[in-house]
Amino acid sequence: MTYRERQGRSGAPGFFWAPPDQIEGKTLRLAGQEARHAVSVCRLQAGEMITVADGAGNAYDCEIERATTREVSTTIIRAHRQLGEPLTHITLAVGVGKPANFDWIVEKAVELGASRIVPLRAAQSPAGIGGTQAAARRAERWRRLALGAMKQCLRSVCPPVDDIAEMSGMPALIEDHQYSLLADPDGLRLDLAGQTAQRITRALVFVGPESGFTVDERRAITGAGALPFTLGARRLRAETAAVAALALVMRELGDL
Amino acid sequence: MTYRERQGRSGAPGFFWAPPDQIEGKTLRLAGQEARHAVSVCRLQAGEMITVADGAGNAYDCEIERATTREVSTTIIRAHRQLGEPLTHITLAVGVGKPANFDWIVEKAVELGASRIVPLRAAQSPAGIGGTQAAARRAERWRRLALGAMKQCLRSVCPPVDDIAEMSGMPALIEDHQYSLLADPDGLRLDLAGQTAQRITRALVFVGPESGFTVDERRAITGAGALPFTLGARRLRAETAAVAALALVMRELGDL
Repeated sequence: MTYRERQGRSGAPGFFWAPPDQIEGKTLRLAGQEARHAVSVCRLQAGEMITVADGAGNAYDCEIERATTREVSTTIIRAHRQLGEPLTHITLAVGVGKPANFDWIVEKAVELGASRIVPLRAAQSPAGIGGTQAAARRAERWRRLALGAMKQCLRSVCPPVDDIAEMSGMPALIEDHQYSLLADPDGLRLDLAGQTAQRITRALVFVGPESGFTVDERRAITGAGALPFTLGARRLRAETAAVAALALVMRELGDL
Repeated sequence: MTYRERQGRSGAPGFFWAPPDQIEGKTLRLAGQEARHAVSVCRLQAGEMITVADGAGNAYDCEIERATTREVSTTIIRAHRQLGEPLTHITLAVGVGKPANFDWIVEKAVELGASRIVPLRAAQSPAGIGGTQAAARRAERWRRLALGAMKQCLRSVCPPVDDIAEMSGMPALIEDHQYSLLADPDGLRLDLAGQTAQRITRALVFVGPESGFTVDERRAITGAGALPFTLGARRLRAETAAVAALALVMRELGDL
């Protein structure tokens, strides 16, 4: 049975996660929640096939040897490199607004194919995201959501979610990418074919928080080299803008 | 002050709705909730300017003459045709899954620029959407959400939301559109430039419910003339697929 056939259409009962240190030679182990989920929820047994991603770009078709709720031991039958991964590494840097909306942005960004997510503390982000402990808890939550979304959408990379970042670090982030873009109501229509001759393999996309970036923030981002582009004539909510911007850039880079 | 300056960045305090029958010559009235909202929430007074869309493609810059919570009477200063509207009429036909997700699809579809939304009762839609009374209530709710989203995103057309439609009606719907597409994991990369010589002004896009369209449904849709296209190598949730499909098609048709 091919990977494609097995993934089916209803949920992902056969798609699991194991960090690289649970893989030794041809043996791969599911532990903790993954083992519990495989046995208690998916009712998987010895002899059945599953696919396991390591979150670092590898996925394995495995046959289950022994299955208990504490550990599922499997033999690797076949390995896939970069399963479900886009050609371009896209970092999505989004101003944090309402936390629930950002949860949603993380999930959708992982599904669509973002390779890294940077939550930004923008001038118009809510005051509440300031505390270091609360911010750390939030980032942890987003990392869990990213891992869940990776399994849901059958990717092999779990995109890292940064700790909430300050705007002052953005010029360095732009410096670290080959090409940077800013979703901006006053920007031009995105046209990467006309902008650059070389193939873009590492891009950065900025999207503002609920009330947008301030004029100063937009100036700082574009001043550091990001190109403003429009998402159309309508005013989008922050989460719609994030998803549309990512889809648009992936499309333009040939990944959609 | 231009429309652009007035729309500001924080909420849409100055963007309202009045159906065409509340416009007579140079006089436009806000009534009901719109009047209450203008006066009680936005604290607008005589002499201030607002923009009002009629939901049918017209928007008006108006000066307030008299403002009470029951009626706001204004004089039209300037009219805009098709304010915030895309060039292409896109009908988005989506299989109904979880009702809360569909709420969200309606909002995002209106923001992005869909011109009509058709909720489909697909084979894998939940059984609960069957009852005629419940279905009618749901469609009413989606219409209210569409109107709210129209104001939020500063459009002048309120896209109609059909009553929940049966799959058997889809060949007729396809017949009624110039070009039809189906978001399909097995489809090819969307390339409308290569597919058609004439400018597409009226397109229809199908997206499945949470568990997807069945093989039979996909066959029926493509058999009636819809072209399957892919949304990438990752498995998207239904709501992500709807937003990404719409963004992609609008991009391809030059509206994004």
